[in-house]
Amino acid sequence: MPPGLQKTLQEMSGRVPSWLEASDRDENGIVISTSVRLARNLHGHNFPLHADEAELEEVLEKTWAACSAIEPLADSYRMPLQDLPWEDKRFLVERHLISPAMSEIEGPAGVIIGPGECLSIMVNEEDHIRLQQVAAGMAGEETWSVLEAVDDALGRELPYAYREPYGYLTASPINVGTGLRVSVLVHLPALVLTSEVEAVLRHATQNGVQVRGVHGEGSSVYGNLFQVSNQRTLGRSEADILDSLQRVAGLLTDHEQEARSTLWHEARLQLEDKIHRSLGLLSSARVLSIRESMNLLSAVRLGVNMGVLSGVEISRLDELTILTQPSHLDRREGRVLDSSERDMLRAELVRSRIDASGGTTSHE
Amino acid sequence: MPPGLQKTLQEMSGRVPSWLEASDRDENGIVISTSVRLARNLHGHNFPLHADEAELEEVLEKTWAACSAIEPLADSYRMPLQDLPWEDKRFLVERHLISPAMSEIEGPAGVIIGPGECLSIMVNEEDHIRLQQVAAGMAGEETWSVLEAVDDALGRELPYAYREPYGYLTASPINVGTGLRVSVLVHLPALVLTSEVEAVLRHATQNGVQVRGVHGEGSSVYGNLFQVSNQRTLGRSEADILDSLQRVAGLLTDHEQEARSTLWHEARLQLEDKIHRSLGLLSSARVLSIRESMNLLSAVRLGVNMGVLSGVEISRLDELTILTQPSHLDRREGRVLDSSERDMLRAELVRSRIDASGGTTSHE
Repeated sequence: MPPGLQKTLQEMSGRVPSWLEASDRDENGIVISTSVRLARNLHGHNFPLHADEAELEEVLEKTWAACSAIEPLADSYRMPLQDLPWEDKRFLVERHLISPAMSEIEGPAGVIIGPGECLSIMVNEEDHIRLQQVAAGMAGEETWSVLEAVDDALGRELPYAYREPYGYLTASPINVGTGLRVSVLVHLPALVLTSEVEAVLRHATQNGVQVRGVHGEGSSVYGNLFQVSNQRTLGRSEADILDSLQRVAGLLTDHEQEARSTLWHEARLQLEDKIHRSLGLLSSARVLSIRESMNLLSAVRLGVNMGVLSGVEISRLDELTILTQPSHLDRREGRVLDSSERDMLRAELVRSRIDASGGTTSHE
Repeated sequence: MPPGLQKTLQEMSGRVPSWLEASDRDENGIVISTSVRLARNLHGHNFPLHADEAELEEVLEKTWAACSAIEPLADSYRMPLQDLPWEDKRFLVERHLISPAMSEIEGPAGVIIGPGECLSIMVNEEDHIRLQQVAAGMAGEETWSVLEAVDDALGRELPYAYREPYGYLTASPINVGTGLRVSVLVHLPALVLTSEVEAVLRHATQNGVQVRGVHGEGSSVYGNLFQVSNQRTLGRSEADILDSLQRVAGLLTDHEQEARSTLWHEARLQLEDKIHRSLGLLSSARVLSIRESMNLLSAVRLGVNMGVLSGVEISRLDELTILTQPSHLDRREGRVLDSSERDMLRAELVRSRIDASGGTTSHE
């Protein structure tokens, strides 16, 4: 393990990914972020699941070397994962830099992290290479154009597995073709309050998208945050996929806006009560589970978006959704905590950043 | 109805009974108040339940006249109840000046209210005359000595029904004898939290006391407030009754202190969490039911008593338990509100008196 690794992780834990600083760029606060991901594999190598340790090592070395050689990755950090303790892997999952599935992998693997954590490249997850670019708000074209440049540069260094008429070959058939997955993270508190969210999301899935919690497949939904992404890539162009996600995000935004308007006109007092109580609890609780804090932060975020609360910065709320996660709290305290210790530390951190008068504070 | 009556009620609604200002005199905050009550009847008249309107009128007039004649009642206010709208009677019940049973009576009846509402005399409730004196904290002897003087003076003006060897005759046999009932209002939040309250109160009732909610028989318990009083009066002296209530109050205080100590040592964080959250909700909610506000005020009171919260005045909390009652809110708004309007007004009033930083404020 490189000597600077723990130091790097520690530094990361004190700040949030740079794209999050612009998390209020979507004016109604519904689309929080967009991420695009490409799945790539090296010609002449077995997919990771069928490769032995020597082959995985070889793929990792080849990819490390290629990444070092290309200009877009000049300032990125290469992090080997093989001997990383599980708590550090959990930390990377909480940062959305590696997938939950990747945190379980024990063989040679790694992740390359770009400046500000906007870009990440997983090596030897389900595919040899998975590139990901994130940005705040609805930013399909912006993130895609950045990632396309990285992918093009990397493709000149590495022999990508590609076969006509399919396209890029991937370990799982659902990624064959462009290998592109576009995800938007959407905040739908009003649709949850009006109990319409299930019907709206069911309708969306009929249009070829899938919906998950914040941490990918199988993860539960906290804080009314839903990750919506395209279901298949085969036979579709990148532009087509980007376009369809854009349309679904627009549809969800419209439904959420409508639900907010309904709440405002039909249950304004109850809505304001919920929002103010949530802020009151965040600024007073001594014990907060992750589920409760995410739900309270969600209500406060809605309050800011709807103009019920002022003086609360959205980016500070979003920071807290990252910094209050279990492994983040462990890093802050310098050891692996038990869950009741975390609940206490989480409440303390939230209180230090959200003051009782309703404003967010920048001191700790 | 005397012309000044509505004005008097309106003035009362803006302040609280004067004894409440000393409601923090009991240092651990467990015994909130003591009230002593005497039941008296006039010789030669049927008990109210068996008297016709003319006889009730006669009893009322005789009592009015006697009260006007004696020095201890010089500054008291005589309030006829017969034509008083039910919302005004509810208001008097909320002030503990008349009983819930009395608010249902339609014939000639009245109440005499002493300065600061420490003394009240109901005429033509179950008995012809019921005298009551209240004071903050454990104050059996103090309240008894005041009431005894009033009773003596009144007894010189009116022919009390009295027969040896029973003592004072009353409508219900349980009041025969001294006609004395001593009640203490106790705040037992820790015993409720540790689920010991039922067992402790059951034990107390075996010792000849009865336990009720704040508003007398059949009323439900809000805010962990219990009214404990002697069950019978026959064959017992006043000193005996006072003494036994004092002992029961001491016993309950000990149990409550023990429960507080247990919570402090075994669940301090959860306790502090509950207390701070309660304050957070009181200072932020936009809708508060009476049940919720009483329970939140109870937790905050406990927090002050246990030194978890500072800067919150107990007497301000106790004021709110009076001022947030339904008829008090109606008077504040000048009309009979529906319950959702009250819940909103209650939250507004509480917020104006409890500020977000934890302190109580004196402005409105």
